[in-house]
Amino acid sequence: MSNRLQIGLIGAGRIGRVHASTIAYRVADAELAAVTDPIPAAAQALAEKFRVRAVAPDAQSILADPAIDAVLICTPTPTHADLIIAAAAAGKHIFCEKPVAMSLEQTDAAVAAAERAGVTLQIGFNRRFDANFARLRRAVAEGEVGTVEIVHIVSRDPAPPPVEYVRSSGGIFLDMTIHDWDMARFLTGSEIVEVYVQGGVMVDPAIGAAGDIDTHVTLLRFASGAIGTIDNSRRAVYGYDQRAEVFGSRGSIQAQNNYPNSALISTGESVRRDLPLNFFMDRYVEAFAAEVESFVAAVSAGQPVPVTGRDGRAALAVGLAAKLSYAEGRPVRVDEIG
Amino acid sequence: MSNRLQIGLIGAGRIGRVHASTIAYRVADAELAAVTDPIPAAAQALAEKFRVRAVAPDAQSILADPAIDAVLICTPTPTHADLIIAAAAAGKHIFCEKPVAMSLEQTDAAVAAAERAGVTLQIGFNRRFDANFARLRRAVAEGEVGTVEIVHIVSRDPAPPPVEYVRSSGGIFLDMTIHDWDMARFLTGSEIVEVYVQGGVMVDPAIGAAGDIDTHVTLLRFASGAIGTIDNSRRAVYGYDQRAEVFGSRGSIQAQNNYPNSALISTGESVRRDLPLNFFMDRYVEAFAAEVESFVAAVSAGQPVPVTGRDGRAALAVGLAAKLSYAEGRPVRVDEIG
Amino acid sequence: MSNRLQIGLIGAGRIGRVHASTIAYRVADAELAAVTDPIPAAAQALAEKFRVRAVAPDAQSILADPAIDAVLICTPTPTHADLIIAAAAAGKHIFCEKPVAMSLEQTDAAVAAAERAGVTLQIGFNRRFDANFARLRRAVAEGEVGTVEIVHIVSRDPAPPPVEYVRSSGGIFLDMTIHDWDMARFLTGSEIVEVYVQGGVMVDPAIGAAGDIDTHVTLLRFASGAIGTIDNSRRAVYGYDQRAEVFGSRGSIQAQNNYPNSALISTGESVRRDLPLNFFMDRYVEAFAAEVESFVAAVSAGQPVPVTGRDGRAALAVGLAAKLSYAEGRPVRVDEIG
Amino acid sequence: MSNRLQIGLIGAGRIGRVHASTIAYRVADAELAAVTDPIPAAAQALAEKFRVRAVAPDAQSILADPAIDAVLICTPTPTHADLIIAAAAAGKHIFCEKPVAMSLEQTDAAVAAAERAGVTLQIGFNRRFDANFARLRRAVAEGEVGTVEIVHIVSRDPAPPPVEYVRSSGGIFLDMTIHDWDMARFLTGSEIVEVYVQGGVMVDPAIGAAGDIDTHVTLLRFASGAIGTIDNSRRAVYGYDQRAEVFGSRGSIQAQNNYPNSALISTGESVRRDLPLNFFMDRYVEAFAAEVESFVAAVSAGQPVPVTGRDGRAALAVGLAAKLSYAEGRPVRVDEIG
Repeated sequence: MSNRLQIGLIGAGRIGRVHASTIAYRVADAELAAVTDPIPAAAQALAEKFRVRAVAPDAQSILADPAIDAVLICTPTPTHADLIIAAAAAGKHIFCEKPVAMSLEQTDAAVAAAERAGVTLQIGFNRRFDANFARLRRAVAEGEVGTVEIVHIVSRDPAPPPVEYVRSSGGIFLDMTIHDWDMARFLTGSEIVEVYVQGGVMVDPAIGAAGDIDTHVTLLRFASGAIGTIDNSRRAVYGYDQRAEVFGSRGSIQAQNNYPNSALISTGESVRRDLPLNFFMDRYVEAFAAEVESFVAAVSAGQPVPVTGRDGRAALAVGLAAKLSYAEGRPVRVDEIG
Repeated sequence: MSNRLQIGLIGAGRIGRVHASTIAYRVADAELAAVTDPIPAAAQALAEKFRVRAVAPDAQSILADPAIDAVLICTPTPTHADLIIAAAAAGKHIFCEKPVAMSLEQTDAAVAAAERAGVTLQIGFNRRFDANFARLRRAVAEGEVGTVEIVHIVSRDPAPPPVEYVRSSGGIFLDMTIHDWDMARFLTGSEIVEVYVQGGVMVDPAIGAAGDIDTHVTLLRFASGAIGTIDNSRRAVYGYDQRAEVFGSRGSIQAQNNYPNSALISTGESVRRDLPLNFFMDRYVEAFAAEVESFVAAVSAGQPVPVTGRDGRAALAVGLAAKLSYAEGRPVRVDEIG
Repeated sequence: MSNRLQIGLIGAGRIGRVHASTIAYRVADAELAAVTDPIPAAAQALAEKFRVRAVAPDAQSILADPAIDAVLICTPTPTHADLIIAAAAAGKHIFCEKPVAMSLEQTDAAVAAAERAGVTLQIGFNRRFDANFARLRRAVAEGEVGTVEIVHIVSRDPAPPPVEYVRSSGGIFLDMTIHDWDMARFLTGSEIVEVYVQGGVMVDPAIGAAGDIDTHVTLLRFASGAIGTIDNSRRAVYGYDQRAEVFGSRGSIQAQNNYPNSALISTGESVRRDLPLNFFMDRYVEAFAAEVESFVAAVSAGQPVPVTGRDGRAALAVGLAAKLSYAEGRPVRVDEIG
Repeated sequence: MSNRLQIGLIGAGRIGRVHASTIAYRVADAELAAVTDPIPAAAQALAEKFRVRAVAPDAQSILADPAIDAVLICTPTPTHADLIIAAAAAGKHIFCEKPVAMSLEQTDAAVAAAERAGVTLQIGFNRRFDANFARLRRAVAEGEVGTVEIVHIVSRDPAPPPVEYVRSSGGIFLDMTIHDWDMARFLTGSEIVEVYVQGGVMVDPAIGAAGDIDTHVTLLRFASGAIGTIDNSRRAVYGYDQRAEVFGSRGSIQAQNNYPNSALISTGESVRRDLPLNFFMDRYVEAFAAEVESFVAAVSAGQPVPVTGRDGRAALAVGLAAKLSYAEGRPVRVDEIG
């Protein structure tokens, strides 16, 4: 047995494979002891590709394995809270994809379970680990732009998801903006206290028929007095649009999009470059790896993780406030939500 | 007597000199017949520098001069409405600096007077004539970015004005954001129907003591269904920050700041460029000229002007709605204002 | 008679009109006393447009006018040297368009005449006054990028001139690169000591038939030990391409192109902007004005001008060396030319 | 035994580890069967980290192993040619770091040996696989910028190497510019037929004392008639400077530097960004992986490799011509070298 952190992977879907790759190829201090998935072939394929020692029949087997130190929960959202609670009871450290749950009650129960058990719980807000946004956070934290006054976040997907996804995802405020609520808190270092949403169906009427919207701009007020906006669309024909700007008393800092190359082409028509990266896996490939590296490093060192269960809870509360704001057409204080 | 448009200039202050320079040096089809100012020496100096034919003792003399075709009203705001009404009665075409007045009543009276008299009335929303914003408008008008969904305007002054100015200016929503209300209407081609303001005093407590704020972000809803934001600050330490972005169904277009030069400097510390232009006269020097050129051209040709009294009225109404929104902490429909 | 500098304009063509406009509208300390042109109607039209006091029948009349302090020579190149000599003999200060002449002998005679007469002679290397290139020069002069090691100049015209022009212009090395020889000296503050040309006919075979080339890259060695390149083409389909980069011991500085607006457009095809300014009059409008302002200021103050006859002579010598290098296919030291 | 390509790694130094990582983690169709290094501990460490099946005592053992299909030669340059010849004799496909050798004779012998044996030989010109330069090549190959007329390459290291390295490396034209000779050929798709060098010692006198220079600009003539420049310096205080521009009949395309993040910071001093990537391993991390992936793919498919031994030979010949040009201070045709 190695003294490297032994990790069990629960869920062998797309994001499970991303994290397996990180553990296998980039994290010297950890190894994949086991993987499980409701589709055994998926678990088997992942195990082969990423040299996982064992395929487990179910999550319970992984949690029962005394050789396993930590689990990565990469299953559908509805299972997250129960798995966190079970993993905490088993004394495993936990990395869980966002969101923890769709309700504050479940989220609180999961967070409390981890805290009671004294295990580490990190939530998968990968964008905090993106080099661009991390640079903005550093500028704020180090006072490079002074006191934060205004923050703007632009976050637009290249194209809308299948409408079935929208039906079960909790809607745009919980499946998409959840990252931006977290980003707003991360960049400013302050809690969101009020939201006011303007939005609608501008991209795909089927999304409207499913009871959701596909475009919104939300105005935020932070506890610090700072003000923010989040601009979300399910469609940006030019690619995955992920930008932010922080304006402070001593200056501003903007994160721009990432591109597949730096080439600038001048012809008789225009001066142009190729479109920004179009796929979140490309845009955030390094961020996905860095968040898992940070989890392993924190657990190995017995240090706090950079994104806690309480961060997951805070983003959810803002998302629920935004839902209410949109439904009732009024500004909503986040503490109305609880 | 030339058959060039004969213009009387009322007010020889800073903006009066800017427009005098345009007429004198850039507009072949017009000439300055007379100038007046409460400070005769100012009128005299302007007349000499820009070769104005006569210094008039007062506005009435200019309005009474049958050789004069049109007037440029460059006096303090409280005098605008009465001067417009008098000029209309005298059958003069009118270019008037923004805002027309601080109240909708006065504005309506002035606009009605011009319409009744059948004279042209153009309002000095110079930024519409800026090459960057004009390019954005063209993209929208020609469908280059599809249907407008979202617009963001950033408009930050380098440094706050003297607090005495704030006391009489009508406050940030009327003296500063007035340009941005107009810009939002101009870029989208749609009316603003609702505003919600978040703002405060972040720059200068004296501004707060004078009853105004110095920073705000306002969320807008347009009649078209589009959504917008305006970001205003009385301070941007890096210079005059004047940007906008329009996001549409087929793409987006952004206007960036203007710089004194294009040089990019790479040293051991950073890759950097000099600060953006810092002064509105530098940033908008061409726009100020272009708006007066457009006025002369429209009057000479008997064509409609590009910025009407009704545009001035519309911007004022939104500004008043924003004041109410901030005062009462709630979204305000512009039609509440009247 | 005003105590403003009294200027006689010799030549009412395109560049004459540009300079007349500067004197008329931007230079408070000078006025146009007279203009002359072989085509009297051209002189007359210019006089009216720019309020010149008199139309003179010929250059001699201007030089004989004791009220005139200085002349602007805006005639075809073959007349420059004789006009300089005559103006110097008449005690007039002289601003002359580049090049002084096609031969070093004529150039030397003209420069010597001005020096003997103690009159000011400034040569029209307008690009030194461009904000971008002036910024590069300032970086070098102030040590911002350390000791200059390498300089690259890119200078490409949008489209080739008529082939008749090429026949009488002295060819690309004297009519086009003349600006770049000067720019290389200006940016580095050092003399060019050797040139080696690679070039050919890549744009227009008619230019080749006329005995010239239309494309070249020349490698330069400076007296300081620095190295340089000049990239010239008679065609850049994307617009007027005017850039430079200086690489020094402490960093580098690049001048980029100027654009009609700052708008950035993102669509499903690309992220692009409109083409750079296409016409030299647009690109260098401010530089043309600034050079004449600097001439008036220097003459009025009795100070040295920023671009002397010797600068004109130096650029010509390098151009002749480049011609020889291309003709003989070998590096040529400038002191071979004399 | 897997049917994946079995690879032997000869040399466990820095670049050996880079390639081992690629084979281990990114190339599904290959695996590392063995590694050897004169320092057994280095081979052992690499084997453990990248799960290589065996540590071989020497290169001969690897070449004698019938289970091995291909070798990666990552040893010092003086050993390359002999190893290629031996590997070819053993029927192994070969990926060899650049340059093949310091002499054309050795290079020719190695290339001939591989051709005679019918084995694949790829040379490690990794920069061809960089996304920026590959994009330029694609623009040229697809006619996006028309016929190539001019190419400029800027290639500056952050800081000079130890002077001992310079003593044995063959000097700047063979150890550093070798990449740029290849890049010039790659971008244009044409052979270099003449070089003329201007250069000197501007960075470190110790490099001069060791008989080399540290800065040069070389003017190139291509067989196609195109013209090029290469700008090399052993020092760029702002980071690793790797750019290129191709100017063609229908437009131009430029590759710019790569940065650690996209953040743009505006303060009271400047608008700036962080420095470009400073280390070649960071700048070319993806290119190093892509070249080895392309080698495995080509060998597995029995297809030609994208960078052949003849490419290695061509770059060397130009480097030797440049040495002669600098030594004799004259343009040198590459066919003088042989």
